[in-house]
Amino acid sequence: MGKQGILAVVSGFSGAGKGTLMKELLARYDNYALSVSATTRPPREGEQDGREYFFLSEEEFVQLIDTDQLLEHAIYVNHRYGTPRGYVTEQLQAGRDVILEIDIQGARRVKQQFPEALLLFVSAPSVEELKRRLAGRGSESGEVIQARLERAREEAKGMDGYDYLLINDDLDACVEEMHRIIQAQHARLSQNREFVEHIRKTLGI
Amino acid sequence: MGKQGILAVVSGFSGAGKGTLMKELLARYDNYALSVSATTRPPREGEQDGREYFFLSEEEFVQLIDTDQLLEHAIYVNHRYGTPRGYVTEQLQAGRDVILEIDIQGARRVKQQFPEALLLFVSAPSVEELKRRLAGRGSESGEVIQARLERAREEAKGMDGYDYLLINDDLDACVEEMHRIIQAQHARLSQNREFVEHIRKTLGI
Repeated sequence: MGKQGILAVVSGFSGAGKGTLMKELLARYDNYALSVSATTRPPREGEQDGREYFFLSEEEFVQLIDTDQLLEHAIYVNHRYGTPRGYVTEQLQAGRDVILEIDIQGARRVKQQFPEALLLFVSAPSVEELKRRLAGRGSESGEVIQARLERAREEAKGMDGYDYLLINDDLDACVEEMHRIIQAQHARLSQNREFVEHIRKTLGI
Repeated sequence: MGKQGILAVVSGFSGAGKGTLMKELLARYDNYALSVSATTRPPREGEQDGREYFFLSEEEFVQLIDTDQLLEHAIYVNHRYGTPRGYVTEQLQAGRDVILEIDIQGARRVKQQFPEALLLFVSAPSVEELKRRLAGRGSESGEVIQARLERAREEAKGMDGYDYLLINDDLDACVEEMHRIIQAQHARLSQNREFVEHIRKTLGI
C-alpha cells in the first residue's frame, strides 16, 4: 500500500544461512533490491565489481566517508566495508524493498538514520546446530573457532535490538516467512501517512 | 514459533467492514479465538448469550469491574460494554491468537496491559467511500450522521496509536493481509524470549 519501499536489515549468526536465504528471496520475488557493499578488500577469484562488492581503493573509500555517502562503515581484518547511501535511498524512493546484509553494529547505525528500518535476525534452528556450525568442519584452528564464538556472543547480546527472529530450520519456509514479514511492513501506519493525512483533512481535522 | 498466542486488537471506522473481515478470518483459519464482550444492553432478536455478547445485569457487570475481571470497559448510550480478561489470557496461554474488536479508547487500555498487543486499524478504501458509508443509505437523520462523523474524527485522531492500517478494498485480499500480519507477529523477538535466553546461556553469556 505504501509507495515508499521497505528497508530490511538482515543480520545473524555465522552459518545461519543468511546468504542462501537472501539469494532465494531475490530469485522468487522481483520487488527486492539487494544493496551491494563497498570494500577496500581486493576481489577474490570469480568476484565481480558491483555484484559481490564495489571494490574501491583506500582513497576512494575515505572520500565516500568524507562526503557522507555511506550509511555505515566498519573495518574487519584491515579492510574497510560500507553501505553506499545513494543506492539505498534511490531504490526505496522507487518503491523497491531494499535488503541490507550487515552486522549488528551496522544495523544499529542504519536504524538511527532510518528509524522505520526493519531489523531481522537469522538464527540456526537450535543451539546444538549453532555450535556445530560455529565449530565448522573440524579443519579450523581452535583460535578461529574461539573468534567465531566470541562474535556469536556479541551478536547474541545485540539480538534485543532486532524486530524479528527468523529461525532457519527449513529454507523454503524461512524464505516465505521473511517475505511475509517484509511485505506486512507495507501496512504499517508509518508507511501510510499520506492516506491518514488525507482522511483527516477530509474529515475536517 | 512462539508458544504464546498473539493478541490482535481491531478497530476502525464505522462501515469499514470489520465485522465481515473477522467473520471471514475465523472461517478460514482455526488458530483464532474471537473475544466475546460483556454488556448490560438487552439482547436483540436472534442474539445468543455467549455468542454475540455475554448479557449481564448491571450488578453482574459492576462485580466484574470490582474484581478486576475486565480488560477494559466503557459506556455507550447508557449501556456498559467490556472485555472479560479470563477468556483472553486463557486463550493466549493455550497458544491461540485472540482477536478483540474494540474502539480506540479500549484499544489504548488493552495496550497498557498487554504492551505486545498488535493494534490494527481498518479503513474503507478511500475518503469518498468512507463519507458515503458514514452518510448511510439516506434514511438516517442529520443528527445520526453528525454523530457518526464526530466519532470518525475521534478515530482518525487516534489512528497514530495503531501498528497497522488495513485498507478494506477487496475483502479476500484484506482477510489474507490481516492473517499475514498477525502470523508474522509470532516471529517478533519479544515472542521468542525463551529461544534467545537458551542461546545466550549456551554461549556462556
